[in-house]
Amino acid sequence: MKKQKNNSVTEDKRNINSKKKERVLKVRFLGGVGEIGKNMTALEFGKDIIVIDAGVSFPGENMPGVDLVIPDYSYLIENQSKIRGIVITHGHEDHIGALPYFLKEINAPVFGTKLTLTLIESKIKEHKLDNVVFNCIKAGSVVKLGAFSVEFINVNHSIAGAVALAIKTPVGTVFHSGDFKIDYTPVAGETMDLTRIGEIGSEGVLLMMADSTNIEIEGTTMSESVVKETLDHVFSENVNRRLIIATFASNVHRVQQILDLAVKYKRKVAFLGRSMINTVEAASKIGEITIPKNLIIDVEKCENFRDGELVIISTGSQGEPMSALTRLASGEISKVVVGERDTVIISASVIPGNEKMIYGVINRLYKLGAEVIYESLEPIHVSGHALKGELRVLHSLVKPKFFIPVHGEYRHLKKHSDLAESVGVRKGNTLIAEIGDTIEFTSNSMKRGERFKAGSKFVDGVTLDGVDSFVLRDRIHLSEDGLVVVVVGVSEQSATLTSLEIIGKGLVVSEDMIEEAKDTLATFLNKIDMRAIKDESEINSLIRRSLKNYLYKKTKKNPMILPVVMVV
Amino acid sequence: MKKQKNNSVTEDKRNINSKKKERVLKVRFLGGVGEIGKNMTALEFGKDIIVIDAGVSFPGENMPGVDLVIPDYSYLIENQSKIRGIVITHGHEDHIGALPYFLKEINAPVFGTKLTLTLIESKIKEHKLDNVVFNCIKAGSVVKLGAFSVEFINVNHSIAGAVALAIKTPVGTVFHSGDFKIDYTPVAGETMDLTRIGEIGSEGVLLMMADSTNIEIEGTTMSESVVKETLDHVFSENVNRRLIIATFASNVHRVQQILDLAVKYKRKVAFLGRSMINTVEAASKIGEITIPKNLIIDVEKCENFRDGELVIISTGSQGEPMSALTRLASGEISKVVVGERDTVIISASVIPGNEKMIYGVINRLYKLGAEVIYESLEPIHVSGHALKGELRVLHSLVKPKFFIPVHGEYRHLKKHSDLAESVGVRKGNTLIAEIGDTIEFTSNSMKRGERFKAGSKFVDGVTLDGVDSFVLRDRIHLSEDGLVVVVVGVSEQSATLTSLEIIGKGLVVSEDMIEEAKDTLATFLNKIDMRAIKDESEINSLIRRSLKNYLYKKTKKNPMILPVVMVV
Repeated sequence: MKKQKNNSVTEDKRNINSKKKERVLKVRFLGGVGEIGKNMTALEFGKDIIVIDAGVSFPGENMPGVDLVIPDYSYLIENQSKIRGIVITHGHEDHIGALPYFLKEINAPVFGTKLTLTLIESKIKEHKLDNVVFNCIKAGSVVKLGAFSVEFINVNHSIAGAVALAIKTPVGTVFHSGDFKIDYTPVAGETMDLTRIGEIGSEGVLLMMADSTNIEIEGTTMSESVVKETLDHVFSENVNRRLIIATFASNVHRVQQILDLAVKYKRKVAFLGRSMINTVEAASKIGEITIPKNLIIDVEKCENFRDGELVIISTGSQGEPMSALTRLASGEISKVVVGERDTVIISASVIPGNEKMIYGVINRLYKLGAEVIYESLEPIHVSGHALKGELRVLHSLVKPKFFIPVHGEYRHLKKHSDLAESVGVRKGNTLIAEIGDTIEFTSNSMKRGERFKAGSKFVDGVTLDGVDSFVLRDRIHLSEDGLVVVVVGVSEQSATLTSLEIIGKGLVVSEDMIEEAKDTLATFLNKIDMRAIKDESEINSLIRRSLKNYLYKKTKKNPMILPVVMVV
Repeated sequence: MKKQKNNSVTEDKRNINSKKKERVLKVRFLGGVGEIGKNMTALEFGKDIIVIDAGVSFPGENMPGVDLVIPDYSYLIENQSKIRGIVITHGHEDHIGALPYFLKEINAPVFGTKLTLTLIESKIKEHKLDNVVFNCIKAGSVVKLGAFSVEFINVNHSIAGAVALAIKTPVGTVFHSGDFKIDYTPVAGETMDLTRIGEIGSEGVLLMMADSTNIEIEGTTMSESVVKETLDHVFSENVNRRLIIATFASNVHRVQQILDLAVKYKRKVAFLGRSMINTVEAASKIGEITIPKNLIIDVEKCENFRDGELVIISTGSQGEPMSALTRLASGEISKVVVGERDTVIISASVIPGNEKMIYGVINRLYKLGAEVIYESLEPIHVSGHALKGELRVLHSLVKPKFFIPVHGEYRHLKKHSDLAESVGVRKGNTLIAEIGDTIEFTSNSMKRGERFKAGSKFVDGVTLDGVDSFVLRDRIHLSEDGLVVVVVGVSEQSATLTSLEIIGKGLVVSEDMIEEAKDTLATFLNKIDMRAIKDESEINSLIRRSLKNYLYKKTKKNPMILPVVMVV
């Protein structure tokens, strides 16, 4: 393996030397900078483009009705003939979630490790896409994609099969960390390949892009084996109680640990939640998870076992409304009635924004009499993202000439730039990119290039297009201030008002107020000369103006006023 | 002072002995249990009621358009002749915010310390209420209110003038902690009166109710003087830079520290934000804050001073949309243009739910080039709520027979009950109350009594009544799925369709879809016998049914369908 890799590197160097030096590498940021989520970056050199990741983010409070947010990759659609491949660092939603939409429009081969591709394939299947070309790679291998040769490097993260990328380009090597942490004592798999990263660093790295998620936290992440110890302690302290453990289905090493502990403590395991069952099945097929024989039982059979003989592994660690844990807490799963003999462990940290949901579930579990163990109480989860100490290790090994922080809001990126300069990147050789930025590189320069069309697209029901800021503004307006529909009938012959109807929704208005508003409006409309009105928009705006002040005075709200004029 | 207090206590004991022992104290929970915010509790004995606090909470994501949430105090309105007074522990919104609404309906004297009443008075003025009777009390004093005598005890908190309450009742003493922490080295005022609390504990406490906010955190809170040291450090490290410090206006001790540091480092101070200016003015009038001469300048004059000669103290520590700090970050305040020479300090912790807003402001300040110092980076704020260690101190001093935790979600209350039992309350003598619970006490028993009408009321524009779950459901429906208005004209003579109009809002529909929907509906309506239709609701539901499936198929959404039928 090593040998092959080195061959490829040498080959690549020859390529570089044969090309003109003045040509430019363009790094295009489509997502994941200045925000958390929907990671997507493209590297472009001449006629070749490779894409790194295609993630989603989840809608904020200001996006009612939106299901998912994906990067606007119009630029890639326009330049799809150049795309040599899309390289995925790992199988989390913020790195793979946009793929089904992307692949519907762009036919490009997908590269990733086994678990990553397994997770992508199940998404692709839901979207009924075929003809997608998957290339399963292993950490350590190198893939040639046009002008680029991409080396996949093992890293640790809260999902198996995560990789960093060392991308040889005609102007120098680009190192992309992906999401990573350094786990010196992983419970499965290998420690992040620091040796290889050191070698790459010694060979010279033009640009590093690295994960900034935990840049604000000093120190280093705890190892997954700490979780193992805590969970072992929980098992040994609760021998006569039923255990219900909620975690992310994709965290297969965590699931493996729980299975191992179940064997050790002679408990049977039942899985709860569709994504848990599907993911474990898929991971087991590809050997990422090992399930001992006779360990798993169907959840329907739980009743046949004593409390101390059972572990239930469930989805819903974020309190998602339809998830298994939420339904358990609401008493909706008749085969598993939660009560005083249960200990529920939430083995995941709360993703910012999910606090209310998960604490709501925790409160309900306590009310049912269960014991609940969660993050603020015990180390039953560890972060998957490097803290400051680990980031310093990475910087010291890679020693890039230029540095662009990724995966973070502006404040994270700013601090990661500062850290880079503090550990050796020359001042001025770091840069904070925004979505839509092109950053241009030669072998010894970095500068801002053209801006390109980029941003967010909203997945809303079946629609991808059309959900724009106007639709969202209307939805927010409707939810904050409610709505008043005004239907006006005007006689074609006499041009006088024949009927008037006012309906309020989402607004607190009394019958009297509606009547008064009708009178006010009728008086107003009867006074104006309908024949003088040029078009519908004119009368609409007259109606709006006439009602707006009245409604604000009465309700201190500015409801949306929707006039409908019918000429009869 | 001590003497007078003791007299009063003796007097009270006589009263108690003269009454029948079997009578019952009813503690009624109107808010602040099973939730964070809108604290309100009532004590009822025979013909006497006293109310403790009248707070608001802020609307959640599921309450669009709602401005404030206040307790439903219908029970108190019905029993207002019994109310002897409303006792306020301190001047934070979650303890005083509902008072203007409460006092509009219930005429009861208000008791509180100087700063608390000052803050209440300015609210009352905004609501144009007069005839409110205020009774300014000092920590250490005792007030007789019907069957109750209320002793006010100094505690530390993130606002000056906070008190706990020791309430003598005919069946025993009730101790209510209010919001508190123990600050052994406060920067102003006295340390919490642990000696007096110990005495009260020795005399015997029937029931304690205590703050559960920080029950999940081990240890003790840091002292306000730690913040002083950090801020001093910030001043000494930034001698040539302008300082902008955002904090809560009501945290007058924090403001005082900044003023003191400004004097020490020879800087002028400008206040920014209406509530900051008003609160400082009010606090200064009553002597809660001391402003050295020639220290304060108008913000308009900032231009006349060098960066190192200025501190700006601003509102907006939570990133509130219209606050001074948010406007600074958006470049909306022309006299204070934030840039590379500014260091912005956010001296407050993020209230859960406000993360996105405040981090949005921080990101924008960084983009403007400013340095920003906030919670995750430095100890520039300390919590105002006791951690587990301090709660143990309180329990050990008060040694109540019965314990009911307050100020927390269910999980907090559960853990506080556990802590109470671990430090001496007999198992079974703790209880978790819910809003609407009456808990009944004799001198040696606690039991659940009747449920009473209680819950939440929404302040929505000018309205208090009428914003019910239906209105909120409509608003959420509108924001998630949008709206389709269908206006149908039917001829009175022929009972046939004369016109049809469909309008979509907050929904992604094309012109073609609208036309197709119109055709579908017209075909349907032309087929039915309009004369056979009994009333409007029947035709409305026919229209809804006919469109619902079509719209769902096309949009995967269920928009609100609003039919308007006009007979012409």
